[in-house]
Amino acid sequence: MGIDKQDTARPSLGLIGFGAFGRLVAATLVDHFDLTVCDPGYVQATLPDGRLCRMGTLADVARLDVVVMAVPVARLHHLCTTLAPLLSPGTLVLDVGSVKVEPVAIMQELLPDHVDIVATHPLFGPQSAKDGVEGHKVVLCPVRGQRLRSVARVLRRLGLKVIVECAEAHDREAAMVQGLTHLIAKVLVGLGPLPERMTTASFDLLREAVGMVKDDPPTVLHAIEVANPYSAEVREAFFAHADTLRAHFDADRERNPKENPTA
Amino acid sequence: MGIDKQDTARPSLGLIGFGAFGRLVAATLVDHFDLTVCDPGYVQATLPDGRLCRMGTLADVARLDVVVMAVPVARLHHLCTTLAPLLSPGTLVLDVGSVKVEPVAIMQELLPDHVDIVATHPLFGPQSAKDGVEGHKVVLCPVRGQRLRSVARVLRRLGLKVIVECAEAHDREAAMVQGLTHLIAKVLVGLGPLPERMTTASFDLLREAVGMVKDDPPTVLHAIEVANPYSAEVREAFFAHADTLRAHFDADRERNPKENPTA
Repeated sequence: MGIDKQDTARPSLGLIGFGAFGRLVAATLVDHFDLTVCDPGYVQATLPDGRLCRMGTLADVARLDVVVMAVPVARLHHLCTTLAPLLSPGTLVLDVGSVKVEPVAIMQELLPDHVDIVATHPLFGPQSAKDGVEGHKVVLCPVRGQRLRSVARVLRRLGLKVIVECAEAHDREAAMVQGLTHLIAKVLVGLGPLPERMTTASFDLLREAVGMVKDDPPTVLHAIEVANPYSAEVREAFFAHADTLRAHFDADRERNPKENPTA
Repeated sequence: MGIDKQDTARPSLGLIGFGAFGRLVAATLVDHFDLTVCDPGYVQATLPDGRLCRMGTLADVARLDVVVMAVPVARLHHLCTTLAPLLSPGTLVLDVGSVKVEPVAIMQELLPDHVDIVATHPLFGPQSAKDGVEGHKVVLCPVRGQRLRSVARVLRRLGLKVIVECAEAHDREAAMVQGLTHLIAKVLVGLGPLPERMTTASFDLLREAVGMVKDDPPTVLHAIEVANPYSAEVREAFFAHADTLRAHFDADRERNPKENPTA
Protein backbone atom coordinates (compact mmCIF):
# COMPACT_ATOMS: atom_id res chain seq x y z
CA MET A 1 0.00 0.00 0.00
CA GLY A 2 1.31 3.48 -0.71
CA ILE A 3 0.55 6.92 -1.98
CA ASP A 4 2.79 6.92 -5.11
CA LYS A 5 5.83 8.86 -3.97
CA GLN A 6 7.70 5.82 -2.63
CA ASP A 7 5.71 2.68 -3.23
CA THR A 8 8.43 0.31 -2.02
CA ALA A 9 8.45 0.87 1.76
CA ARG A 10 5.56 2.01 3.92
CA PRO A 11 5.20 5.74 3.25
CA SER A 12 5.45 8.06 6.23
CA LEU A 13 2.23 9.74 7.32
CA GLY A 14 1.75 12.58 9.75
CA LEU A 15 -1.62 12.79 11.46
CA ILE A 16 -2.45 16.18 12.91
CA GLY A 17 -5.19 15.90 15.53
CA PHE A 18 -5.87 12.96 17.81
CA GLY A 19 -9.51 13.66 18.67
CA ALA A 20 -12.23 11.03 18.24
CA PHE A 21 -11.93 11.05 14.45
CA GLY A 22 -8.14 11.36 14.47
CA ARG A 23 -7.96 8.20 16.58
CA LEU A 24 -10.12 6.40 14.05
CA VAL A 25 -7.79 7.57 11.25
CA ALA A 26 -4.77 6.38 13.23
CA ALA A 27 -6.29 2.96 13.99
CA THR A 28 -7.25 2.54 10.33
CA LEU A 29 -3.89 3.58 8.85
CA VAL A 30 -1.33 2.46 11.44
CA ASP A 31 -0.63 -0.87 9.74
CA HIS A 32 -0.27 0.67 6.29
CA PHE A 33 1.83 3.77 6.97
CA ASP A 34 4.77 4.76 9.11
CA LEU A 35 2.62 6.91 11.38
CA THR A 36 3.53 9.97 13.45
CA VAL A 37 0.85 11.79 15.45
CA CYS A 38 0.93 15.50 16.25
CA ASP A 39 -1.50 16.78 18.87
CA PRO A 40 -0.29 19.14 21.60
CA GLY A 41 -3.33 18.13 23.68
CA TYR A 42 -1.99 14.62 24.25
CA VAL A 43 1.07 13.41 26.15
CA GLN A 44 0.84 10.06 24.39
CA ALA A 45 -1.27 8.77 21.51
CA THR A 46 -2.81 5.41 22.42
CA LEU A 47 -4.74 3.33 19.90
CA PRO A 48 -7.92 1.43 20.93
CA ASP A 49 -5.87 -1.81 20.91
CA GLY A 50 -3.41 -0.28 23.39
CA ARG A 51 -0.56 0.36 20.95
CA LEU A 52 1.25 3.66 21.30
CA CYS A 53 1.83 5.85 18.23
CA ARG A 54 5.04 7.80 17.74
CA MET A 55 4.41 11.49 18.42
CA GLY A 56 6.03 14.50 16.82
CA THR A 57 5.86 18.27 16.47
CA LEU A 58 4.16 20.07 13.63
CA ALA A 59 7.60 20.54 12.04
CA ASP A 60 8.24 16.77 12.34
CA VAL A 61 5.02 15.69 10.60
CA ALA A 62 5.21 18.46 7.96
CA ARG A 63 8.30 16.76 6.50
CA LEU A 64 6.57 13.41 5.90
CA ASP A 65 5.19 11.91 2.66
CA VAL A 66 1.56 12.41 3.59
CA VAL A 67 -0.07 14.82 6.05
CA VAL A 68 -3.65 14.28 7.23
CA MET A 69 -5.26 17.20 9.01
CA ALA A 70 -7.90 15.79 11.37
CA VAL A 71 -8.85 19.04 13.05
CA PRO A 72 -12.20 20.86 13.28
CA VAL A 73 -13.09 22.84 10.14
CA ALA A 74 -13.12 25.99 12.27
CA ARG A 75 -9.43 25.44 13.12
CA LEU A 76 -8.26 24.60 9.59
CA HIS A 77 -7.38 28.17 8.61
CA HIS A 78 -5.11 28.61 11.62
CA LEU A 79 -3.49 25.20 11.10
CA CYS A 80 -2.79 25.78 7.40
CA THR A 81 -1.24 29.16 8.16
CA THR A 82 1.16 27.57 10.65
CA LEU A 83 1.79 24.44 8.62
CA ALA A 84 2.37 26.04 5.21
CA PRO A 85 6.00 27.21 5.64
CA LEU A 86 6.97 23.82 7.15
CA LEU A 87 5.75 21.58 4.31
CA SER A 88 8.25 19.80 2.03
CA PRO A 89 7.85 19.85 -1.76
CA GLY A 90 5.88 16.86 -3.01
CA THR A 91 4.06 16.21 0.26
CA LEU A 92 0.43 15.15 -0.10
CA VAL A 93 -1.92 17.05 2.22
CA LEU A 94 -5.45 15.89 3.02
CA ASP A 95 -8.22 17.17 5.28
CA VAL A 96 -11.16 15.15 6.63
CA GLY A 97 -13.78 17.87 7.25
CA SER A 98 -17.54 17.33 7.01
CA VAL A 99 -17.81 20.20 4.55
CA LYS A 100 -15.65 20.78 1.50
CA VAL A 101 -16.23 24.24 -0.04
CA GLU A 102 -14.59 26.11 2.83
CA PRO A 103 -11.66 23.71 3.49
CA VAL A 104 -10.84 23.52 -0.22
CA ALA A 105 -10.73 27.33 -0.43
CA ILE A 106 -8.56 27.55 2.69
CA MET A 107 -6.10 24.87 1.50
CA GLN A 108 -5.87 26.36 -1.99
CA GLU A 109 -5.19 29.80 -0.59
CA LEU A 110 -2.76 28.94 2.20
CA LEU A 111 -0.80 25.79 1.28
CA PRO A 112 2.29 26.22 -0.95
CA ASP A 113 2.15 25.37 -4.65
CA HIS A 114 4.77 22.64 -4.16
CA VAL A 115 2.40 20.31 -2.21
CA ASP A 116 -0.38 18.16 -3.61
CA ILE A 117 -3.82 18.49 -2.03
CA VAL A 118 -6.81 16.14 -1.88
CA ALA A 119 -9.83 17.16 0.19
CA THR A 120 -11.76 14.27 1.74
CA HIS A 121 -14.95 13.69 3.66
CA PRO A 122 -15.14 10.26 5.25
CA LEU A 123 -18.91 9.65 5.48
CA PHE A 124 -18.59 7.84 8.78
CA GLY A 125 -17.51 8.49 12.31
CA PRO A 126 -16.25 6.69 15.40
CA GLN A 127 -19.82 5.54 16.14
CA SER A 128 -20.86 4.22 12.73
CA ALA A 129 -17.42 2.72 12.00
CA LYS A 130 -16.83 1.24 15.45
CA ASP A 131 -16.51 -2.19 13.83
CA GLY A 132 -14.21 -0.93 11.07
CA VAL A 133 -14.40 1.32 8.04
CA GLU A 134 -15.10 -1.44 5.51
CA GLY A 135 -18.20 -0.77 3.43
CA HIS A 136 -18.38 2.88 4.45
CA LYS A 137 -18.12 5.75 1.98
CA VAL A 138 -15.56 8.51 1.51
CA VAL A 139 -15.85 11.54 -0.76
CA LEU A 140 -12.71 12.87 -2.49
CA CYS A 141 -12.46 16.33 -4.02
CA PRO A 142 -9.43 16.97 -6.26
CA VAL A 143 -7.70 20.20 -5.26
CA ARG A 144 -4.12 20.27 -6.53
CA GLY A 145 -1.73 17.77 -8.16
CA GLN A 146 -2.20 14.31 -9.63
CA ARG A 147 -2.51 12.11 -6.53
CA LEU A 148 -6.30 11.66 -6.38
CA ARG A 149 -6.29 8.27 -8.08
CA SER A 150 -3.63 6.82 -5.84
CA VAL A 151 -5.47 8.09 -2.76
CA ALA A 152 -8.63 6.44 -4.09
CA ARG A 153 -6.72 3.19 -4.63
CA VAL A 154 -5.42 3.12 -1.05
CA LEU A 155 -8.87 3.89 0.38
CA ARG A 156 -10.51 1.19 -1.77
CA ARG A 157 -7.99 -1.32 -0.47
CA LEU A 158 -9.19 -0.43 3.04
CA GLY A 159 -12.67 -1.49 1.91
CA LEU A 160 -14.05 2.03 1.48
CA LYS A 161 -16.39 3.09 -1.30
CA VAL A 162 -14.82 6.12 -2.98
CA ILE A 163 -16.94 8.92 -4.48
CA VAL A 164 -15.17 11.68 -6.41
CA GLU A 165 -17.07 14.95 -6.49
CA CYS A 166 -16.49 18.70 -6.52
CA ALA A 167 -16.76 20.62 -3.26
CA GLU A 168 -20.00 22.42 -4.19
CA ALA A 169 -21.87 19.24 -5.14
CA HIS A 170 -20.58 17.59 -1.98
CA ASP A 171 -21.75 20.37 0.31
CA ARG A 172 -25.15 20.55 -1.36
CA GLU A 173 -25.79 16.84 -0.80
CA ALA A 174 -24.15 16.75 2.65
CA ALA A 175 -26.44 19.59 3.73
CA MET A 176 -29.37 17.22 3.25
CA VAL A 177 -27.68 14.00 4.37
CA GLN A 178 -26.04 15.28 7.53
CA GLY A 179 -28.22 18.34 8.10
CA LEU A 180 -31.45 16.33 8.14
CA THR A 181 -29.99 13.51 10.25
CA HIS A 182 -28.81 15.94 12.90
CA LEU A 183 -32.03 17.99 12.86
CA ILE A 184 -34.14 14.89 13.36
CA ALA A 185 -31.77 13.59 16.02
CA LYS A 186 -32.02 16.87 17.91
CA VAL A 187 -35.81 16.93 17.81
CA LEU A 188 -36.04 13.30 18.96
CA VAL A 189 -33.45 13.73 21.70
CA GLY A 190 -35.41 16.78 22.86
CA LEU A 191 -38.51 14.60 23.27
CA GLY A 192 -36.77 12.65 26.00
CA PRO A 193 -36.04 8.92 26.27
CA LEU A 194 -37.43 7.12 23.23
CA PRO A 195 -39.52 3.96 23.66
CA GLU A 196 -37.57 0.71 23.38
CA ARG A 197 -40.21 -1.93 24.06
CA MET A 198 -43.22 -1.75 21.75
CA THR A 199 -41.20 -0.62 18.78
CA THR A 200 -41.54 -1.22 15.06
CA ALA A 201 -38.64 -2.05 12.76
CA SER A 202 -38.84 1.44 11.24
CA PHE A 203 -38.74 3.11 14.66
CA ASP A 204 -35.76 0.94 15.66
CA LEU A 205 -33.94 2.24 12.57
CA LEU A 206 -34.75 5.84 13.55
CA ARG A 207 -33.48 5.22 17.07
CA GLU A 208 -30.30 3.62 15.74
CA ALA A 209 -29.71 6.60 13.41
CA VAL A 210 -30.16 9.02 16.31
CA GLY A 211 -27.80 6.96 18.46
CA MET A 212 -25.08 7.25 15.84
CA VAL A 213 -25.04 11.05 15.73
CA LYS A 214 -26.43 12.32 19.02
CA ASP A 215 -23.02 12.42 20.71
CA ASP A 216 -21.20 14.04 17.81
CA PRO A 217 -18.92 16.77 19.19
CA PRO A 218 -19.87 20.46 18.78
CA THR A 219 -17.10 20.83 16.19
CA VAL A 220 -18.88 18.37 13.88
CA LEU A 221 -22.21 20.13 14.44
CA HIS A 222 -20.53 23.45 13.60
CA ALA A 223 -19.27 22.04 10.29
CA ILE A 224 -22.67 20.60 9.39
CA GLU A 225 -24.89 23.42 10.61
CA VAL A 226 -22.79 26.54 10.08
CA ALA A 227 -19.83 25.91 7.78
CA ASN A 228 -21.92 24.18 5.11
CA PRO A 229 -23.21 27.01 2.87
CA TYR A 230 -26.37 25.03 2.01
CA SER A 231 -27.40 23.93 5.50
CA ALA A 232 -29.60 26.93 6.32
CA GLU A 233 -31.63 26.28 3.17
CA VAL A 234 -32.19 22.62 4.09
CA ARG A 235 -33.17 23.55 7.65
CA GLU A 236 -35.67 26.09 6.37
CA ALA A 237 -37.20 23.52 4.04
CA PHE A 238 -37.48 21.03 6.91
CA PHE A 239 -39.16 23.54 9.23
CA ALA A 240 -41.45 24.79 6.43
CA HIS A 241 -42.63 21.23 5.75
CA ALA A 242 -43.14 20.63 9.46
CA ASP A 243 -45.27 23.82 9.55
CA THR A 244 -47.37 22.66 6.61
CA LEU A 245 -47.94 19.32 8.26
CA ARG A 246 -48.88 20.97 11.54
CA ALA A 247 -51.36 23.26 9.80
CA HIS A 248 -52.86 20.22 8.10
CA PHE A 249 -53.35 18.43 11.44
CA ASP A 250 -54.76 21.58 13.07
CA ALA A 251 -57.28 21.97 10.25
CA ASP A 252 -58.25 18.31 10.61
CA ARG A 253 -58.83 18.78 14.29
CA GLU A 254 -61.01 21.85 13.71
CA ARG A 255 -63.13 19.91 11.26
CA ASN A 256 -63.41 16.97 13.64
CA PRO A 257 -62.83 18.12 17.23
CA LYS A 258 -63.61 14.64 18.61
CA GLU A 259 -59.97 13.52 18.31
CA ASN A 260 -60.63 10.25 20.14
CA PRO A 261 -63.74 8.57 18.74
CA THR A 262 -64.17 6.47 21.89
CA ALA A 263 -64.27 9.51 24.18
CA MET B 1 -49.99 -25.59 16.71
CA GLY B 2 -53.42 -24.57 17.93
CA ILE B 3 -55.41 -22.11 19.95
CA ASP B 4 -56.58 -24.42 22.79
CA LYS B 5 -60.12 -25.29 21.78
CA GLN B 6 -59.12 -28.31 19.68
CA ASP B 7 -55.41 -28.88 19.82
CA THR B 8 -55.48 -32.20 17.91
CA ALA B 9 -56.28 -31.11 14.34
CA ARG B 10 -55.52 -27.76 12.75
CA PRO B 11 -58.04 -25.33 14.24
CA SER B 12 -60.28 -23.48 11.82
CA LEU B 13 -59.58 -19.77 11.42
CA GLY B 14 -61.68 -17.14 9.70
CA LEU B 15 -59.81 -14.09 8.42
CA ILE B 16 -62.02 -11.08 7.80
CA GLY B 17 -60.30 -8.61 5.47
CA PHE B 18 -57.86 -9.42 2.68
CA GLY B 19 -56.13 -6.05 2.35
CA ALA B 20 -52.34 -5.71 2.49
CA PHE B 21 -52.18 -6.71 6.14
CA GLY B 22 -54.86 -9.40 5.83
CA ARG B 23 -52.79 -11.04 3.08
CA LEU B 24 -49.76 -11.04 5.37
CA VAL B 25 -51.87 -12.68 8.12
CA ALA B 26 -53.12 -15.29 5.63
CA ALA B 27 -49.64 -16.08 4.32
CA THR B 28 -48.31 -16.37 7.89
CA LEU B 29 -51.11 -18.60 9.24
CA VAL B 30 -52.19 -20.68 6.22
CA ASP B 31 -49.95 -23.64 7.10
CA HIS B 32 -51.00 -23.68 10.74
CA PHE B 33 -54.77 -23.22 10.53
CA ASP B 34 -57.63 -24.39 8.36
CA LEU B 35 -58.09 -20.96 6.83
CA THR B 36 -61.21 -19.31 5.37
CA VAL B 37 -61.05 -15.74 4.08
CA CYS B 38 -63.99 -13.34 4.06
CA ASP B 39 -63.67 -10.17 2.04
CA PRO B 40 -66.51 -9.04 -0.24
CA GLY B 41 -64.00 -6.91 -2.16
CA TYR B 42 -62.24 -9.98 -3.59
CA VAL B 43 -63.50 -12.64 -6.00
CA GLN B 44 -60.63 -14.90 -4.97
CA ALA B 45 -58.01 -14.72 -2.25
CA THR B 46 -54.56 -15.46 -3.70
CA LEU B 47 -51.49 -15.77 -1.49
CA PRO B 48 -48.11 -14.33 -2.59
CA ASP B 49 -46.97 -17.88 -3.46
CA GLY B 50 -49.95 -18.30 -5.78
CA ARG B 51 -52.04 -20.57 -3.56
CA LEU B 52 -55.72 -19.82 -3.38
CA CYS B 53 -57.46 -19.54 0.01
CA ARG B 54 -60.96 -20.89 0.61
CA MET B 55 -63.43 -18.01 0.76
CA GLY B 56 -66.59 -17.72 2.81
CA THR B 57 -69.30 -15.33 3.94
CA LEU B 58 -69.28 -13.53 7.27
CA ALA B 59 -71.70 -16.19 8.58
CA ASP B 60 -69.27 -18.91 7.43
CA VAL B 61 -66.22 -17.51 9.21
CA ALA B 62 -68.19 -16.52 12.34
CA ARG B 63 -68.74 -20.22 13.11
CA LEU B 64 -65.03 -21.11 13.15
CA ASP B 65 -62.68 -21.66 16.13
CA VAL B 66 -60.80 -18.40 15.67
CA VAL B 67 -61.84 -15.16 13.95
CA VAL B 68 -59.23 -12.53 13.03
CA MET B 69 -60.60 -9.13 12.06
CA ALA B 70 -58.05 -7.51 9.74
CA VAL B 71 -60.07 -4.42 8.89
CA PRO B 72 -59.30 -0.72 9.39
CA VAL B 73 -59.93 0.53 12.94
CA ALA B 74 -62.52 2.93 11.54
CA ARG B 75 -64.56 -0.03 10.24
CA LEU B 76 -64.33 -2.17 13.36
CA HIS B 77 -67.51 -0.84 14.99
CA HIS B 78 -69.59 -1.66 11.94
CA LEU B 79 -67.99 -5.09 11.56
CA CYS B 80 -68.52 -6.03 15.21
CA THR B 81 -72.18 -4.97 15.03
CA THR B 82 -72.75 -7.25 12.03
CA LEU B 83 -70.57 -10.09 13.30
CA ALA B 84 -71.84 -10.26 16.90
CA PRO B 85 -75.09 -12.21 16.35
CA LEU B 86 -73.29 -14.72 14.08
CA LEU B 87 -70.51 -15.76 16.50
CA SER B 88 -70.55 -19.25 18.08
CA PRO B 89 -69.96 -19.73 21.81
CA GLY B 90 -66.31 -20.33 22.60
CA THR B 91 -64.98 -18.67 19.47
CA LEU B 92 -61.79 -16.65 19.95
CA VAL B 93 -61.96 -13.21 18.31
CA LEU B 94 -58.88 -11.06 17.64
CA ASP B 95 -58.29 -7.70 16.00
CA VAL B 96 -55.00 -6.43 14.53
CA GLY B 97 -55.44 -2.63 14.79
CA SER B 98 -52.58 -0.16 15.24
CA VAL B 99 -54.35 1.30 18.29
CA LYS B 100 -55.85 -0.63 21.14
CA VAL B 101 -57.97 1.62 23.43
CA GLU B 102 -60.72 2.14 20.88
CA PRO B 103 -60.85 -1.43 19.43
CA VAL B 104 -60.87 -2.96 22.94
CA ALA B 105 -63.79 -0.72 23.94
CA ILE B 106 -65.68 -1.59 20.72
CA MET B 107 -65.12 -5.35 21.08
CA GLN B 108 -66.06 -5.34 24.77
CA GLU B 109 -69.23 -3.44 24.05
CA LEU B 110 -70.43 -5.22 20.93
CA LEU B 111 -69.21 -8.84 20.97
CA PRO B 112 -71.30 -11.40 22.91
CA ASP B 113 -70.21 -12.61 26.33
CA HIS B 114 -69.85 -16.16 25.03
CA VAL B 115 -66.78 -15.40 22.88
CA ASP B 116 -63.21 -14.90 24.08
CA ILE B 117 -61.40 -11.76 22.93
CA VAL B 118 -57.71 -10.92 22.58
CA ALA B 119 -56.73 -7.55 21.10
CA THR B 120 -53.45 -7.54 19.15
CA HIS B 121 -51.15 -5.08 17.48
CA PRO B 122 -48.58 -6.71 15.23
CA LEU B 123 -45.73 -4.18 15.25
CA PHE B 124 -44.88 -4.85 11.63
CA GLY B 125 -46.43 -4.51 8.23
CA PRO B 126 -46.18 -5.92 4.72
CA GLN B 127 -43.08 -3.78 4.13
CA SER B 128 -41.07 -4.52 7.26
CA ALA B 129 -42.09 -8.20 7.31
CA LYS B 130 -41.68 -8.81 3.59
CA ASP B 131 -39.12 -11.54 4.39
CA GLY B 132 -41.29 -13.10 7.11
CA VAL B 133 -42.56 -12.19 10.56
CA GLU B 134 -39.76 -13.91 12.49
CA GLY B 135 -38.07 -11.59 14.98
CA HIS B 136 -40.83 -8.98 14.78
CA LYS B 137 -42.92 -7.94 17.76
CA VAL B 138 -46.62 -8.25 18.53
CA VAL B 139 -48.50 -6.66 21.42
CA LEU B 140 -51.36 -8.59 23.06
CA CYS B 141 -54.01 -6.97 25.27
CA PRO B 142 -56.20 -9.34 27.28
CA VAL B 143 -59.88 -8.44 26.82
CA ARG B 144 -62.12 -11.39 27.73
CA GLY B 145 -61.60 -15.09 28.55
CA GLN B 146 -58.50 -17.18 29.31
CA ARG B 147 -56.95 -17.63 25.86
CA LEU B 148 -54.20 -14.99 25.98
CA ARG B 149 -51.45 -17.44 26.92
CA SER B 150 -52.28 -19.89 24.17
CA VAL B 151 -52.37 -17.07 21.62
CA ALA B 152 -48.96 -15.96 22.87
CA ARG B 153 -47.67 -19.54 22.52
CA VAL B 154 -48.81 -19.81 18.89
CA LEU B 155 -47.31 -16.43 18.01
CA ARG B 156 -44.00 -17.28 19.68
CA ARG B 157 -43.85 -20.48 17.65
CA LEU B 158 -44.08 -18.29 14.54
CA GLY B 159 -40.92 -16.53 15.76
CA LEU B 160 -42.66 -13.42 17.05
CA LYS B 161 -41.68 -11.55 20.21
CA VAL B 162 -44.83 -11.25 22.33
CA ILE B 163 -45.44 -8.23 24.58
CA VAL B 164 -48.49 -8.29 26.87
CA GLU B 165 -49.74 -4.85 27.83
CA CYS B 166 -52.95 -2.99 28.60
CA ALA B 167 -54.57 -0.89 25.87
CA GLU B 168 -53.75 2.47 27.45
CA ALA B 169 -50.04 1.72 27.92
CA HIS B 170 -49.92 0.40 24.35
CA ASP B 171 -51.50 3.49 22.84
CA ARG B 172 -49.29 5.81 24.84
CA GLU B 173 -46.11 4.13 23.56
CA ALA B 174 -47.44 3.57 20.03
CA ALA B 175 -48.22 7.28 19.81
CA MET B 176 -44.49 7.93 20.05
CA VAL B 177 -43.26 4.91 18.12
CA GLN B 178 -45.59 5.12 15.15
CA GLY B 179 -46.56 8.76 15.46
CA LEU B 180 -42.97 9.99 15.31
CA THR B 181 -41.97 7.59 12.52
CA HIS B 182 -44.85 8.77 10.34
CA LEU B 183 -44.32 12.46 11.13
CA ILE B 184 -40.65 12.25 10.19
CA ALA B 185 -41.46 10.22 7.09
CA LYS B 186 -43.99 12.84 5.98
CA VAL B 187 -41.58 15.71 6.47
CA LEU B 188 -38.78 13.89 4.61
CA VAL B 189 -41.05 12.77 1.76
CA GLY B 190 -42.21 16.40 1.49
CA LEU B 191 -38.60 17.47 0.94
CA GLY B 192 -38.50 15.53 -2.33
CA PRO B 193 -36.19 12.73 -3.43
CA LEU B 194 -33.61 12.03 -0.72
CA PRO B 195 -29.91 11.75 -1.60
CA GLU B 196 -28.67 8.22 -2.20
CA ARG B 197 -25.03 8.73 -3.14
CA MET B 198 -23.00 10.65 -0.59
CA THR B 199 -24.87 9.18 2.35
CA THR B 200 -23.83 8.29 5.87
CA ALA B 201 -24.85 5.08 7.65
CA SER B 202 -27.22 7.06 9.89
CA PHE B 203 -28.89 8.74 6.91
CA ASP B 204 -29.26 5.36 5.17
CA LEU B 205 -31.12 4.13 8.27
CA LEU B 206 -33.43 7.17 8.16
CA ARG B 207 -34.11 6.57 4.49
CA GLU B 208 -34.83 2.89 5.11
CA ALA B 209 -37.22 3.78 7.95
CA VAL B 210 -39.05 6.24 5.69
CA GLY B 211 -39.24 3.64 2.94
CA MET B 212 -40.96 1.18 5.28
CA VAL B 213 -43.85 3.48 6.18
CA LYS B 214 -44.24 6.00 3.39
CA ASP B 215 -46.68 3.85 1.43
CA ASP B 216 -48.82 2.85 4.42
CA PRO B 217 -52.48 3.12 3.43
CA PRO B 218 -54.63 6.02 4.71
CA THR B 219 -56.43 3.59 7.04
CA VAL B 220 -53.20 2.94 8.94
CA LEU B 221 -52.46 6.66 9.08
CA HIS B 222 -55.96 7.26 10.44
CA ALA B 223 -55.38 4.73 13.23
CA ILE B 224 -52.00 6.23 14.13
CA GLU B 225 -52.83 9.91 13.77
CA VAL B 226 -56.49 10.14 14.74
CA ALA B 227 -57.69 7.02 16.55
CA ASN B 228 -54.78 6.98 19.00
CA PRO B 229 -55.85 9.22 21.91
CA TYR B 230 -52.23 10.21 22.62
CA SER B 231 -51.08 11.05 19.11
CA ALA B 232 -52.01 14.76 19.16
CA GLU B 233 -49.89 15.22 22.29
CA VAL B 234 -46.85 13.57 20.67
CA ARG B 235 -47.29 15.65 17.50
CA GLU B 236 -47.47 18.85 19.53
CA ALA B 237 -44.30 17.92 21.41
CA PHE B 238 -42.53 17.20 18.10
CA PHE B 239 -43.58 20.51 16.56
CA ALA B 240 -42.76 22.42 19.77
CA HIS B 241 -39.25 20.99 19.79
CA ALA B 242 -38.83 21.79 16.11
CA ASP B 243 -39.88 25.39 16.90
CA THR B 244 -37.37 25.65 19.73
CA LEU B 245 -34.63 24.37 17.47
CA ARG B 246 -35.58 26.79 14.72
CA ALA B 247 -35.55 29.73 17.15
CA HIS B 248 -32.12 28.62 18.31
CA PHE B 249 -30.77 28.59 14.74
CA ASP B 250 -32.41 31.94 13.95
CA ALA B 251 -30.79 33.49 17.03
CA ASP B 252 -27.42 32.04 16.01
CA ARG B 253 -27.77 33.56 12.59
CA GLU B 254 -28.62 36.98 14.01
CA ARG B 255 -25.56 36.86 16.23
CA ASN B 256 -23.37 35.75 13.33
CA PRO B 257 -24.96 36.77 10.00
CA LYS B 258 -21.90 35.52 8.07
CA GLU B 259 -23.33 31.98 7.74
CA ASN B 260 -20.51 30.82 5.50
CA PRO B 261 -17.16 31.89 6.94
CA THR B 262 -15.49 31.70 3.51
CA ALA B 263 -17.92 34.18 1.96
